[in-house]
Amino acid sequence: MPSGTTLVTGIGVLVTNDPALGEGPLGLVREAALVLDGERVAWAGPAGRAPTADARVDAGGRAALPGFVDSHTHLVFDGDRTEEFGARMSGRPYAAGGIRTTVAATRAAGDERLHANVARYVAEALRQGTTVVETKSGYGLSPGEEARALRIAAAHTDETTFLGAHIVPPEYEDDPAGYVALVTGPMLDACAPYARWVDVFCERGAFDGDQARAILTAGAARGLVPRVHANQLSYGPGVRLAVELDAASADHCTHLTDEDVDALAQGRTVATLLPGAEFSTRAPWPDARRLLDAGATVALSTDCNPGSSFTSSMPFCIALAVREMGMTPDEAVWAATAGGAAALRRTDVGRLAPGARADLLLLDAPSPVHLAYRPGVPLVSAVWRRGARVH
Amino acid sequence: MPSGTTLVTGIGVLVTNDPALGEGPLGLVREAALVLDGERVAWAGPAGRAPTADARVDAGGRAALPGFVDSHTHLVFDGDRTEEFGARMSGRPYAAGGIRTTVAATRAAGDERLHANVARYVAEALRQGTTVVETKSGYGLSPGEEARALRIAAAHTDETTFLGAHIVPPEYEDDPAGYVALVTGPMLDACAPYARWVDVFCERGAFDGDQARAILTAGAARGLVPRVHANQLSYGPGVRLAVELDAASADHCTHLTDEDVDALAQGRTVATLLPGAEFSTRAPWPDARRLLDAGATVALSTDCNPGSSFTSSMPFCIALAVREMGMTPDEAVWAATAGGAAALRRTDVGRLAPGARADLLLLDAPSPVHLAYRPGVPLVSAVWRRGARVH
Ligand SMILES: [Zn+2]
Ligand SMILES: [Zn+2]
Repeated sequence: MPSGTTLVTGIGVLVTNDPALGEGPLGLVREAALVLDGERVAWAGPAGRAPTADARVDAGGRAALPGFVDSHTHLVFDGDRTEEFGARMSGRPYAAGGIRTTVAATRAAGDERLHANVARYVAEALRQGTTVVETKSGYGLSPGEEARALRIAAAHTDETTFLGAHIVPPEYEDDPAGYVALVTGPMLDACAPYARWVDVFCERGAFDGDQARAILTAGAARGLVPRVHANQLSYGPGVRLAVELDAASADHCTHLTDEDVDALAQGRTVATLLPGAEFSTRAPWPDARRLLDAGATVALSTDCNPGSSFTSSMPFCIALAVREMGMTPDEAVWAATAGGAAALRRTDVGRLAPGARADLLLLDAPSPVHLAYRPGVPLVSAVWRRGARVH
Repeated sequence: MPSGTTLVTGIGVLVTNDPALGEGPLGLVREAALVLDGERVAWAGPAGRAPTADARVDAGGRAALPGFVDSHTHLVFDGDRTEEFGARMSGRPYAAGGIRTTVAATRAAGDERLHANVARYVAEALRQGTTVVETKSGYGLSPGEEARALRIAAAHTDETTFLGAHIVPPEYEDDPAGYVALVTGPMLDACAPYARWVDVFCERGAFDGDQARAILTAGAARGLVPRVHANQLSYGPGVRLAVELDAASADHCTHLTDEDVDALAQGRTVATLLPGAEFSTRAPWPDARRLLDAGATVALSTDCNPGSSFTSSMPFCIALAVREMGMTPDEAVWAATAGGAAALRRTDVGRLAPGARADLLLLDAPSPVHLAYRPGVPLVSAVWRRGARVH
């Protein structure tokens, strides 16, 4: 843990995500400064009023933002699906069954290799400004393999999600009910100690509404909070089930009825949109505008996984959300920081106000709008996590 | 100039763009090595057969590619158009007139500031693997200002383009014929010493076919080779004029008739597609598939400029070309390297074969397909330009 206080000054625009500290929903402060004290933010405001500190960093007019909160990834995997990607880009549609390729490769991989893979993608995300990463099991699909995946994930992040119900594995193809019994019984027993969340891929070809309800309810009874892969490939019961069970997040939300949108607007469940998946599967875009106009809380996340969305770039997701999903640049920046924190029910991250965790990034640009205005350009030039400069 | 020879070995897949050296149009060599000698490639082939060298670099299984050739940018500018971008993303369409904002800011900027801007964007592109950058005037629009822009550009790249005919400046609004006379007369006199190419924005609201022909012909008479901003916002005469005048490139090609496609397929003019512009102006995508199927040569480029496409990322353009324009990953990689070289009529860059310039990059990935498979992720982990490691 870093000792002493650090003044980060010369910030062109600071995104605090605290409307009490600055303009608009992003709580923007111009010509700003921050004081970091150990792992925490001690002070945020106009540079002219900043208190003194032990050390000093000049941001040179750059924009400063809370670190990105990527609330949906699948990083515990092995194997490559480059060829499947190439084939899909030549016209074959995405099918959830491709997950089985990764399941086979992940089961065959040693612990060390999986640790190295997770570490690599977490570090890659960190260099791009992501300071909190949620990650899921779901490529093991047996009690031992799912528990192994979560043990490995837990060594790299606190935000671990049990996704035994990712797909029905080949060995249960003729007995999906038996697989649900396994997931809600011995698999949950093995996994609960390593997970904070329970998740289900509620989709045609994966798990239906009743199966999803059984799994999420069983997880909740063990203290895991639900989140749901909902309404990605088709209309279905996932979103309404998520809201009904007070899930932290309904993820994807690509195919929504008016009732689904109403449910999200009225409940506490965050709508987490994953445009990397639509980009890499050439699927229709989720309609963020419709959700925002209805009053739902929207988060952006990468869905980083080797099948349907192999990006770890939150800036890329922001650019897509603005180009394709009807979000303004400010809304997209909020969704990738405070929105992700809301989807993980965290109040210590996703904002830069006194008491918050000192997770922040500097952009090589004068404004956060440049994340959408300069798509594809690696603009993140410095990252602090828990008060320590990590990039 | 680097002295001695360097062996770059342990390359997982090498893109040579020389079908005589390896598989397919990319001339792929697996488990490959390269020998660099000074500014040039001395040898390329399977690692097991590589000659010895003075120094040795292990690529650790990474893919190696020729440096990207970005054959269309507008880097000599000052001023910010963040607000215009934000407004457009809230529904206002792109209009060429926005260029005037940048003209005013550029005219007001000192030489040092413009040098610093160009240097910054060239360095930013280089870190992303771009080893050759073409750049244009076009924000000066007077003999003195256009010549100043090209003098500044020529300090940073050999590939400079006179684009006095970018738009008609405000002071000639009522006398476009007078502006064409200025461009083909005193402005061309002032600019020809600093430019290799002459370009016209042939578009409704900019210059029509007759004006474009007059300007390109006058430039050609002074030894400048034509290239044309053609058929970006609407159908028009630009592409056919480009082919008729044997222009090196027709750029944008977003709105093409069958005759336009036939002309490109039969002529020597490269079709340079700039998907960053369609991304950032929410315009329909150019149809690369149609051009490739007809037999045209296609290049990809960023169009980096503060109005319509503020990206410097060739990997981003590759990912868009695959997602949106019907290109396979291999076709997009070729278009961003060898295609760009063809659009600049260069044979020394865009390929990695003996005698070529030692411009190359390593990807933190096992295959060039990952440029499309991992969109937004900064994968370029090392860059050499003229044989010198620059990143
Ligand atoms: Zn997912
Ligand atoms: Zn242009």
